[in-house]
Amino acid sequence: MLNRDDAEALSQVSAGTPIGELLRRYWIPVAAIDELGAKPILPVRVLGEDLVLYRDKSGTFGLLERRCPHRQFDLSYGMIEDCGIRCSYHGWRFDERGRCLEQPFEETVNPDSTFKERIRSRAYPVQEKAGLVWTYLGPEPGSLLPDWAGFSSPGFTVVSFLHLPCNWVQVMEGFYDPVHIEWLHDRWSYRLHGREIPARRPKHTAFRWLDFEYGVVFQRKLLGSDQWLADRTVVFPNIDAAGGQGWYLTWIVPVDDVHTMMVYRLTITSWKTPHGQVMIPPKPRVEQERIPSYRKYASLEPQAGPTKDFRSHLVSQDYASWLGPGPIFDRTREHLGETDRGVLMFRQRLFEQARVVAEGGDPLGVIRDPEKNRKITLPGARKGYGVRGEGLPGLTGEEDVMFRAFLPFEVPEHIKGEVETAMSSMVKGLRPDWWKR
Amino acid sequence: MLNRDDAEALSQVSAGTPIGELLRRYWIPVAAIDELGAKPILPVRVLGEDLVLYRDKSGTFGLLERRCPHRQFDLSYGMIEDCGIRCSYHGWRFDERGRCLEQPFEETVNPDSTFKERIRSRAYPVQEKAGLVWTYLGPEPGSLLPDWAGFSSPGFTVVSFLHLPCNWVQVMEGFYDPVHIEWLHDRWSYRLHGREIPARRPKHTAFRWLDFEYGVVFQRKLLGSDQWLADRTVVFPNIDAAGGQGWYLTWIVPVDDVHTMMVYRLTITSWKTPHGQVMIPPKPRVEQERIPSYRKYASLEPQAGPTKDFRSHLVSQDYASWLGPGPIFDRTREHLGETDRGVLMFRQRLFEQARVVAEGGDPLGVIRDPEKNRKITLPGARKGYGVRGEGLPGLTGEEDVMFRAFLPFEVPEHIKGEVETAMSSMVKGLRPDWWKR
Amino acid sequence: MLNRDDAEALSQVSAGTPIGELLRRYWIPVAAIDELGAKPILPVRVLGEDLVLYRDKSGTFGLLERRCPHRQFDLSYGMIEDCGIRCSYHGWRFDERGRCLEQPFEETVNPDSTFKERIRSRAYPVQEKAGLVWTYLGPEPGSLLPDWAGFSSPGFTVVSFLHLPCNWVQVMEGFYDPVHIEWLHDRWSYRLHGREIPARRPKHTAFRWLDFEYGVVFQRKLLGSDQWLADRTVVFPNIDAAGGQGWYLTWIVPVDDVHTMMVYRLTITSWKTPHGQVMIPPKPRVEQERIPSYRKYASLEPQAGPTKDFRSHLVSQDYASWLGPGPIFDRTREHLGETDRGVLMFRQRLFEQARVVAEGGDPLGVIRDPEKNRKITLPGARKGYGVRGEGLPGLTGEEDVMFRAFLPFEVPEHIKGEVETAMSSMVKGLRPDWWKR
Repeated sequence: MLNRDDAEALSQVSAGTPIGELLRRYWIPVAAIDELGAKPILPVRVLGEDLVLYRDKSGTFGLLERRCPHRQFDLSYGMIEDCGIRCSYHGWRFDERGRCLEQPFEETVNPDSTFKERIRSRAYPVQEKAGLVWTYLGPEPGSLLPDWAGFSSPGFTVVSFLHLPCNWVQVMEGFYDPVHIEWLHDRWSYRLHGREIPARRPKHTAFRWLDFEYGVVFQRKLLGSDQWLADRTVVFPNIDAAGGQGWYLTWIVPVDDVHTMMVYRLTITSWKTPHGQVMIPPKPRVEQERIPSYRKYASLEPQAGPTKDFRSHLVSQDYASWLGPGPIFDRTREHLGETDRGVLMFRQRLFEQARVVAEGGDPLGVIRDPEKNRKITLPGARKGYGVRGEGLPGLTGEEDVMFRAFLPFEVPEHIKGEVETAMSSMVKGLRPDWWKR
Repeated sequence: MLNRDDAEALSQVSAGTPIGELLRRYWIPVAAIDELGAKPILPVRVLGEDLVLYRDKSGTFGLLERRCPHRQFDLSYGMIEDCGIRCSYHGWRFDERGRCLEQPFEETVNPDSTFKERIRSRAYPVQEKAGLVWTYLGPEPGSLLPDWAGFSSPGFTVVSFLHLPCNWVQVMEGFYDPVHIEWLHDRWSYRLHGREIPARRPKHTAFRWLDFEYGVVFQRKLLGSDQWLADRTVVFPNIDAAGGQGWYLTWIVPVDDVHTMMVYRLTITSWKTPHGQVMIPPKPRVEQERIPSYRKYASLEPQAGPTKDFRSHLVSQDYASWLGPGPIFDRTREHLGETDRGVLMFRQRLFEQARVVAEGGDPLGVIRDPEKNRKITLPGARKGYGVRGEGLPGLTGEEDVMFRAFLPFEVPEHIKGEVETAMSSMVKGLRPDWWKR
Repeated sequence: MLNRDDAEALSQVSAGTPIGELLRRYWIPVAAIDELGAKPILPVRVLGEDLVLYRDKSGTFGLLERRCPHRQFDLSYGMIEDCGIRCSYHGWRFDERGRCLEQPFEETVNPDSTFKERIRSRAYPVQEKAGLVWTYLGPEPGSLLPDWAGFSSPGFTVVSFLHLPCNWVQVMEGFYDPVHIEWLHDRWSYRLHGREIPARRPKHTAFRWLDFEYGVVFQRKLLGSDQWLADRTVVFPNIDAAGGQGWYLTWIVPVDDVHTMMVYRLTITSWKTPHGQVMIPPKPRVEQERIPSYRKYASLEPQAGPTKDFRSHLVSQDYASWLGPGPIFDRTREHLGETDRGVLMFRQRLFEQARVVAEGGDPLGVIRDPEKNRKITLPGARKGYGVRGEGLPGLTGEEDVMFRAFLPFEVPEHIKGEVETAMSSMVKGLRPDWWKR
């Protein structure tokens, strides 16, 4: 149970707040490269800041204040140019560093004016990597955008975004809480399907976490076994690396104090075909031309009971825990116990690392050495564990697991089609009958 | 016209406010028993408190804080057990007294822990009666749930809930105001139907109220007669007993300061069949297996003019007076006259009885003597009076009156079907031709 | 860039604020006469005041407080009478001066009561003119309702209302900014249609304004010419008279601090028929029996990119500039230049004229001399200029220009039909072949 002050501080993400400043030391994914296609301008809100992301005709990305410094026109209605983005209201043009390059009427009326040199849009650096567009909102010199080894995993990758109307910390806390799997994703699933809970469902007897350079690995024991099962790797401050090898990474991106955007990056490595289940062989690598993406918006109606989503999608079950407590979880009313040691550890680490930042230091996991930043491997959870051990009654095949356990809501049909096409072509491109072995 | 302070106090229903504490001395209906069937968990908001109502597998009802004391999971996504409700997040189980009976992981890790004994959910007593589920939110020892004689009226009973986006007092004030019938339900009805108001419609010349143990009976005189007509019985603080014999009772339940739930309980005693109008004979009693129910949500669009509802349903006409002034009626701008003596009396009584409570006493109508609490009869309005005297032009038969004068909005077809089936069977079950007499 | 205090003052329209008091010195259109037909009661919100407009059975218009002084019943659910409007709750009746003429029950109970003489509804004067209903919310003696010469233009007139969820000043500022036409309505149009901007589109080299008794005329020069083109006449404080001759007048009516109602009055003077383009001859005048009207409600979805409206309607492009900055444009973040000299002038004039009012004077353009108030001509922009010089690629004929450049959104089909019928009849009514000349 937190006091009111700590509870408030924990949920604030704006510039100038302790946690807000901490979060500004890491690179943040804000969109899929795939989204900046036909209309390469996208409004973006992150850490409480309203921004506009664009890719100009020369291929350069920019991320500026959403509103033009001139008369606050919304630049998401702007026009891209060979270099930069132009406001559609009076034609002012800005580059990706926020410099004003052109002010058509001002220059006509007064060619010697230095007005445009005094105009700056707030601008943040942008990088493309792993199918995603990233930004860094902190002070320069900025940290390095991590090169997680998982970004190079063979297979077919899909990106999805889930927008949640709640604070990001209550989402994170679920990832520091291995025991909830036993109930929220297992026993509740049976009940949601109108079935009794089988007597011998797994029961936890212990969990622990092992620190590593970038975060923690949770391990847990089930009744009847003395083996520590690796469950989940969580990278500080906001990455779920459930598949430690990188085939499944989720960024929990704070949009503002009461909104969160989940960024799921799933690399599918096996698939059921008419010929049976196939695995994507790691070599020779098949390059993926583009990484498809989609967005979903979650809501929990106040009077809604369990919905079809709760029954059909593992990720949806988490919504109940994320959104059920309200936009900002009232931590002055909680009562924590043994299940919550991970949650407590996370909060303490957030405050501790915020102090590190306040004192001018680099917080946990910030990377500055380019030598280190090469296909960084994470200590791994056993692949697929979470699904085999617990899950939705009635999951049938690999597609089900992928689409109903690791992606939000209904996966759009066109995405499913792209996956199937790609998987087939990858298999065929190697050897027509390789999967028969 | 109230001053700002009194106007605010009048509309506050939360714990710790004068009127909020007064209301906490009475039993409050929160749901129909009928609603706790297939999915026996229902979120409930009453007097500003977010609660969850459930019926466990042994049939015991419980009403707890909506959010689990552990990590604020929404228990309306919980699971019922043989005893109590279980949180789907980590399996904590609570009984109807708010005691925590189980904490699966805590008990596994630390079998001797007394942690669960220190955990309480706020819990309120629940009773089933008359097709409704009731609760009492005040201090113990609580008052008795009144056994109104009307609960035993012969006939077929239907329950309906109407949710209104406004404070409860402005709804109550309509019931203390007999004169509005002359205009809102009579003359306006003609105009809504595009007709001129007939010259000889009833006109009030006087009204008065008679106090009785539980409230007041309003009486009124019409032009051309010296007879006092009984119009409406109002039980303090929030029951409209328009049919004093109990065939029509309405609870005006404050949800919070700006929301109200009407609970209509209508016992239908006569019906038009292919053979003509039939009356349900009082004896031998036919027991009703279940009391069907439905819910409706009202809104008044800001730019909407009179709608079909205003024209077709008497209850809907009241919406205009309840919702038209806004969520909380600004009583600093009113100008009260002779029509409003009942309204003034009600407000004074609310403040007066709130003082009684503040001083430790029992307010008006609280029942503690079980001997007294047996089929309590209320002084009655003449049955059907309000309808015969005034009403909707074009009302044709008994069904019309029942469904368009005493129930909100369109009655769902399945409810109409149930009523028809039940009425027929009741009639037939007695003697095939009893109604021919 | 304004300081916080000035920025706030600039956007306030309620009584008692400097700009709010200034605006209360002018007549304001609030509805079309055409709207007060079958149901002659209309809720109206203007300058932050909630009012109800009605026309009683004797044809007299009234504009009163929306809520009855008795118990705050919403008079938009009232009933019109031979004289005045009657509250449907208890029958109180008010006339257009706000006097309470009747209190049925009060008078019955106490015939000698002077209660009703002490009751007043706030009432504002109403005039009908030019197809519109007008009011004046300021102190008496009020100013005169201007008789703009354009009200007498020959042709067929249509009125439309566009409701915007933003402050009125940011809408006005667009009219004081001739340069935005070059970009928002010209170059952006090409881009919205997926086309490159042609090399030789017009480019501004200068603009200026000429003061006249009621406002200003903007003039501008284009590259390659030394001629001053008249662009737009703006009448202080809130009328766009783009067609100075009066065939196109727009009132920018502040509803409250964050809502605005545009009132477009367009007189169509030529039309394409199966026989070719026809002009409505000025004489002999054909009187229009009624002026049809319609209402539209604008919104900009936060995540919406350019919509079909932006591509198809000139007026819609302005929405981006009006609504994009948010409900109240944050003028503490702007950076004004040469394009914005007109905007600055307008703000200065608002503050200056507000001071005139505060000191007891009549602000700019208030008319008190009936002799002067006769078909007041405005210095004119060249008709059609704005459209020929810039505009939507793909505009084809006169209907397109009228319906897509000068009216909001899609014009309802029934309005189009009325225009066509009227234009044909006007032409035929004169001489069957006049248009052949």
